[in-house]
Amino acid sequence: MTELGVELDCLAGVKVVDFTQFEAGPSCTESLAWLGAEVVKVENPGVGDPGRRLQAPGAPDNDPWYFHQFNANKKSITVNLKSPRGLEIVKAMLAKADVTVENMAPGTIERLGLGYDEVKKINPGIIYCQVKGFGTGSPYEKSLAFDMIAQAAGGPTSVTGEAGQPPVKPGPSFGDTGTGMLMAISILGALYKRAQTGQGRRLQVAMQDAMIHYMRVPFSRTQLTGKAPARGGSTKSQQGGLVPSALYPCKPGGPNDYVYIFCSRGNPEHWQRLLKVIGREDLKGDERYDTQNARSQRPAEVDEIITAWTRDHTKEEAMKIIGEAGVPAGAVFDTAELMAEPSLAERGIMQTIDHPTTGKVKMPAWPVRFDGRTAKVKPSPLLGQHNTEVLAGWLGMSAAEIDGLKAEGILGN
Amino acid sequence: MTELGVELDCLAGVKVVDFTQFEAGPSCTESLAWLGAEVVKVENPGVGDPGRRLQAPGAPDNDPWYFHQFNANKKSITVNLKSPRGLEIVKAMLAKADVTVENMAPGTIERLGLGYDEVKKINPGIIYCQVKGFGTGSPYEKSLAFDMIAQAAGGPTSVTGEAGQPPVKPGPSFGDTGTGMLMAISILGALYKRAQTGQGRRLQVAMQDAMIHYMRVPFSRTQLTGKAPARGGSTKSQQGGLVPSALYPCKPGGPNDYVYIFCSRGNPEHWQRLLKVIGREDLKGDERYDTQNARSQRPAEVDEIITAWTRDHTKEEAMKIIGEAGVPAGAVFDTAELMAEPSLAERGIMQTIDHPTTGKVKMPAWPVRFDGRTAKVKPSPLLGQHNTEVLAGWLGMSAAEIDGLKAEGILGN
Repeated sequence: MTELGVELDCLAGVKVVDFTQFEAGPSCTESLAWLGAEVVKVENPGVGDPGRRLQAPGAPDNDPWYFHQFNANKKSITVNLKSPRGLEIVKAMLAKADVTVENMAPGTIERLGLGYDEVKKINPGIIYCQVKGFGTGSPYEKSLAFDMIAQAAGGPTSVTGEAGQPPVKPGPSFGDTGTGMLMAISILGALYKRAQTGQGRRLQVAMQDAMIHYMRVPFSRTQLTGKAPARGGSTKSQQGGLVPSALYPCKPGGPNDYVYIFCSRGNPEHWQRLLKVIGREDLKGDERYDTQNARSQRPAEVDEIITAWTRDHTKEEAMKIIGEAGVPAGAVFDTAELMAEPSLAERGIMQTIDHPTTGKVKMPAWPVRFDGRTAKVKPSPLLGQHNTEVLAGWLGMSAAEIDGLKAEGILGN
Repeated sequence: MTELGVELDCLAGVKVVDFTQFEAGPSCTESLAWLGAEVVKVENPGVGDPGRRLQAPGAPDNDPWYFHQFNANKKSITVNLKSPRGLEIVKAMLAKADVTVENMAPGTIERLGLGYDEVKKINPGIIYCQVKGFGTGSPYEKSLAFDMIAQAAGGPTSVTGEAGQPPVKPGPSFGDTGTGMLMAISILGALYKRAQTGQGRRLQVAMQDAMIHYMRVPFSRTQLTGKAPARGGSTKSQQGGLVPSALYPCKPGGPNDYVYIFCSRGNPEHWQRLLKVIGREDLKGDERYDTQNARSQRPAEVDEIITAWTRDHTKEEAMKIIGEAGVPAGAVFDTAELMAEPSLAERGIMQTIDHPTTGKVKMPAWPVRFDGRTAKVKPSPLLGQHNTEVLAGWLGMSAAEIDGLKAEGILGN
């Protein structure tokens, strides 16, 4: 496989002490690592970040895939934070860091002695970042959150699903990575300023609040009508809405054999082009269908006209033919299909890493191209892989000192 | 209403020439504006960004809500890009800019004479950014995309919906704002480096590729099993999966009266705590339910045990009682409920702006707190509101010159 990734050096020299776990925090620090920051994950000896899904020290690592996704390009050290010497080491690292990020349960980092006030004393110029489920001052401030909780409490679940049916949680973990991305933007803004002024910052984001940021189209409908939007699913164009705008079934009829087809309000040409490619130019000028206003009164008829054509085509054919005609069309691709799509690998959007224990893994990369190339994905670290490198590099420890720490169990082995 | 927002100056002095429209591009440049950059939207005279939903010049602005969300804190100038003088003005602005962003249909910016090669000649240090539906080199490279197309072609739709039913597009516009956030991170990384080196960059992201970034949990399941994950909805815990992990119905039974309840794999205490708060301590130690492994074989029984309690509580009560007991729980809040939630306004996550034509609007703010405060939301600009300010400020034009341009129709009025 061609290696298209390039090592980005945008954040070269930026040091991040990373206390994050699972996804909301790790996705944030990983984006900094992809941009070239040195991100050191501080993990508990034993099983480390619970996102590693390690059952017990030494047990087979039989599900490393989740961890690989969110911890590429990072380093890992293991330090027992409950030992005074371990805490001292981490504080020495924080004294040298530009950024630190944590997303532990409410109150945990403070109980470890690494709350904002403590860390600020050690390093007033640090950018200290916290991701929680709910905001300080919210009625749910002390509650735990995971992706599905954030997507419920922040709105996304309420607008997903079929008309008249219960809500559905959106499948992807937008609650986690969607939050991580907002924190990454904020950190980078703070870093830009800090490069000029040395100014430290405390940054905090709640997953519930982050979801609201992604809910602004539904909010704009509530501002218009005063009501929460009703769910409408997506397999039918809606009476009074944009028509067509729906998922249409394709051959051979598998669970994901659908294509989304959409004619925008702003471009009347979309409908004319669509009629042409589906062989229904006989309907050109037909006043039942010729304008959005007319079609919005006949959604079922319009859907049937389109379905008669899509049923005879695969979703790939439909997407290509309709898309090339200048009408928005998107096949419903699933992860297996995307994993097998050659152009994603050719373009460096999927990259194959060679992990020391897992072996070759094809995985998504940071999808933005810098001067035509994506960032090179490097394997996620083994637990404690960089103990020696980081303690020597950051803190100037000698090999003998590090061996001493290991012997005392401070580093867990 | 208390005004909690503060004007952030992280990106003070950063100049952005903004050619974006609708949401994927505008959400990106808006995040830069919230961090303090000077973002100038360049709009066509007449109706401007189609996201304004203006019907015609001078027609009533009866649906400004969508535009307000994605263009807060920006400036607007109107320039006829098809006039040689208009193009010259925009090029003079690009010569002074740090960043430019566009998300027009494929080929459009190049046809305007503002493609990367042209702009690089004017300003080699610029960060030139493009958001498209599909990547250069993708089979769909020239196709249009909107949110629903990206969510279909990038995977999210395939993992959303009920078991055995067609896929459902996730309701929020993750395809748009989700893409904008990844571009914002990349811009900020490039800006950080550029402050040291002056290095310009070309950044490109495709909405399909951006969706893959949010799909990494489903990808991790495909890496484990070789298959695309089947849809499972969210109103039932799944046989063999985490149990409980579902939406449970609450009183009074409205369309969004559900609470998500979840017991994590890593914390066996969650189930014990849950039994206590729902008054079923009689089941403590019952081997049918006591471990995740046991419960994963009896999802329907577990769901019924929990539903018997949730049916007698509102979702707010359920979320509060279960959450305070240390078990992850999230009510399904809809936009109307979130709009009315006092703590969101008290915490500055929702802010009320006073727009010159729309009046008071309560809207979501950038949800990350900087030293305890969110960024102050300023109203989205009127079309061409900043013509004089920007042309004088950026290009040193005199009032007479600007009047001349207006008289010639270059600025559209």
